[in-house]
Amino acid sequence: MTNSTHANAAPHDAAVYDMTALGRQARSASRLLMKASGQAKAGALRAMAARLQARRDYLQEQNGIDLAAAKAAGLAPALIDRLTLSDKALSTMAAGLAQIADMPDPVGSLTASHIRPNGMRVAQMRVPLGVIGIIYESRPNVTIDAAALCLKSGNATILRGGSEAFHSNKALGTIIQEGLAEVNLPAHAVQVVGTTDRAAVGQLITLTEYIDVIIPRGGKGLIARLAAESRVPLIKHLDGNCHVYIDAAADPGLAHDIAINAKTYRYGICGAMETLLVHQDIAARILPRLGASLAARGVELRGCERTRALIPSAATATDEDWGTEYLAAILAIRVVNSLDEAIDHIARWSSGHTESIVTENLSAATRFQREVDSSSVYVNLPTCFADGYEYGLGAEIGVSTNRLHARGPVGLEGLTTLKWVLSGEGQLRG
Amino acid sequence: MTNSTHANAAPHDAAVYDMTALGRQARSASRLLMKASGQAKAGALRAMAARLQARRDYLQEQNGIDLAAAKAAGLAPALIDRLTLSDKALSTMAAGLAQIADMPDPVGSLTASHIRPNGMRVAQMRVPLGVIGIIYESRPNVTIDAAALCLKSGNATILRGGSEAFHSNKALGTIIQEGLAEVNLPAHAVQVVGTTDRAAVGQLITLTEYIDVIIPRGGKGLIARLAAESRVPLIKHLDGNCHVYIDAAADPGLAHDIAINAKTYRYGICGAMETLLVHQDIAARILPRLGASLAARGVELRGCERTRALIPSAATATDEDWGTEYLAAILAIRVVNSLDEAIDHIARWSSGHTESIVTENLSAATRFQREVDSSSVYVNLPTCFADGYEYGLGAEIGVSTNRLHARGPVGLEGLTTLKWVLSGEGQLRG
Repeated sequence: MTNSTHANAAPHDAAVYDMTALGRQARSASRLLMKASGQAKAGALRAMAARLQARRDYLQEQNGIDLAAAKAAGLAPALIDRLTLSDKALSTMAAGLAQIADMPDPVGSLTASHIRPNGMRVAQMRVPLGVIGIIYESRPNVTIDAAALCLKSGNATILRGGSEAFHSNKALGTIIQEGLAEVNLPAHAVQVVGTTDRAAVGQLITLTEYIDVIIPRGGKGLIARLAAESRVPLIKHLDGNCHVYIDAAADPGLAHDIAINAKTYRYGICGAMETLLVHQDIAARILPRLGASLAARGVELRGCERTRALIPSAATATDEDWGTEYLAAILAIRVVNSLDEAIDHIARWSSGHTESIVTENLSAATRFQREVDSSSVYVNLPTCFADGYEYGLGAEIGVSTNRLHARGPVGLEGLTTLKWVLSGEGQLRG
Repeated sequence: MTNSTHANAAPHDAAVYDMTALGRQARSASRLLMKASGQAKAGALRAMAARLQARRDYLQEQNGIDLAAAKAAGLAPALIDRLTLSDKALSTMAAGLAQIADMPDPVGSLTASHIRPNGMRVAQMRVPLGVIGIIYESRPNVTIDAAALCLKSGNATILRGGSEAFHSNKALGTIIQEGLAEVNLPAHAVQVVGTTDRAAVGQLITLTEYIDVIIPRGGKGLIARLAAESRVPLIKHLDGNCHVYIDAAADPGLAHDIAINAKTYRYGICGAMETLLVHQDIAARILPRLGASLAARGVELRGCERTRALIPSAATATDEDWGTEYLAAILAIRVVNSLDEAIDHIARWSSGHTESIVTENLSAATRFQREVDSSSVYVNLPTCFADGYEYGLGAEIGVSTNRLHARGPVGLEGLTTLKWVLSGEGQLRG
């Protein structure tokens, strides 16, 4: 991106840009959002949806600045495509807002309510996390989606999108703040960072006083760096090195279809199968046909020696293959001696994202689901189901590979926390 | 502590001591613990309890080494008292083990189970966090309590207690590992760090590959430093600057008794009231009598000007008082104009631990409980109830002031996480 492209709308200098002010404003807005009614929050989301249509000219004009710069910089067509606020893209975003508006408000619900022997009532109330920072790639739709999910769950949000989408995101931020104003919610409930300087991210991850959690999206390199440096807790997604294990007691037809779907539904999603494990007793029945089906779909196969004996066209898999999330039309295949060996392989090589067993044997299914330590563990399903919509969460902000707090697909509930609420009539301790 | 005291049992040198080996062993043990039966875990806890009695001579002999060093170093009597493995202390620890053994196993329970439109079942299974590091003060009873709670919840544990209790903790670690061996659970399920070198803590907080969470206990200075430096997530407790607000609609007798209990039940606990807020409309009815009662119990009072008009013996409170967790027989008192001012004062000064409103007014109670953003919010109860046993958790590993994951008193459930388990019959995506 050249300097001249941005000359008419230069982002602030980070040395001047006051991230702390954004944090302070977000914290202040968060206090008002915590007590906002579900009606007000849904109203704001509907107002935003209406404005995405009503203010289309403004949005597409600002988006045009980004698109011109992206084309001048020679960005790949796929990247330009996802950067574009087409009429259809805006309609999809508006529909998403309406859908989130219609979801039940997670805030204020009470769980685990019980009466203690001394008569006092103990319960847990679901409440917002507070202030959430989102760091994301150059996809303007994330600006709307993330803001909507955070707002619905009562959180204030600071959004830092990719620099290629800077003007688009600023314009979307304006629309969002207009929607908030329409129902008298604080404008600082959603703030778009007004600089493309990378130093702003470095500041964001140190603002422990003002930001409760940061959700980074984007390349593994960025997320690994943030995980190493952030002082604010992250809800993050690292690798999705997912496995399907075809057990000795699998139904061969089911196993074939699940493996094909797990690998080829979409190569680029985090739930795509990257390694297939097959029990030795069923390998000869499964692998020749499955290998032919995958090859016919253009999937490159890399196998252990026993795999290659059954699929001669497969290349030799190395340890590097077992540890790789291809996100591509490549599959590693290994024949194992037992369920235990499959579980051990997964424990050693998996990233802990999503794994599946194909079996008709109840105890194998039970053991696999209990002993495999991944955020999602399936029986007789393809790993590509790893998605908040498919789980019934209504919407997802991402998939977490953390162990603490939110694990797996993160919906509204993952953006909240619980506080204890106790009620009594003057019971005393001692 | 002199060198000669330790000459016969010198801790390893940290430059040589291999914390990574402890981490690797813990991770390996954790995989076995995840699938251990509730019966085996309870059996191990009961075997430990029996050994605390049967091996009393050994434990008290090793404890004697620590006690001799502590006395030579001139440790305060209260510290020596809590370091002592008396017959009574060992009995209390054994009773605690038996109580935890009898609690229901949290691992494996299924929640949120539902069927999706395509027929697949989606649920969440409660599973161990993995490997937990505990860093704690020189209280040998924590070695037993923490190991027991972590084991019961299926986690492997690395224990790093205060150096004054080094030999006691090593001996307790031996007893624990004997108990594990008796039911064929892995010895490395519970490991006591074999060095008193502080560098070991510095290593512990970097072992993100092997340790899933660290729970530090002890002084605020230590915990703040760990929070600033740890790469492993912490479940931690910082300040407990707790408030009681006496509303205009409070029952004066109830308010008096709650305030007295909240302040004087025990001065040193994190749930002790540190600031009392009183609505101006009821201040004249409350403060003179309450001030006299507190003064009679030896509590030093520091008040705002309106407080001092009603309790002339009170000193003048400054902003520093509003921000201080005294943990002592001192109380700050402020008269406020309204419920809103009380909520604002708490938002500004509270540490987010535990607050309580005293009122007979339903809407004031509802607003306070909804809008005060602390980990525990009470109605008509003293703040000193902030304790896992009082909440019915059976036992607690501590009180968390985090917002993510575990918030407030942390029992067995806080030491677990949820994984998604999906079961189908070959449903495909697309």
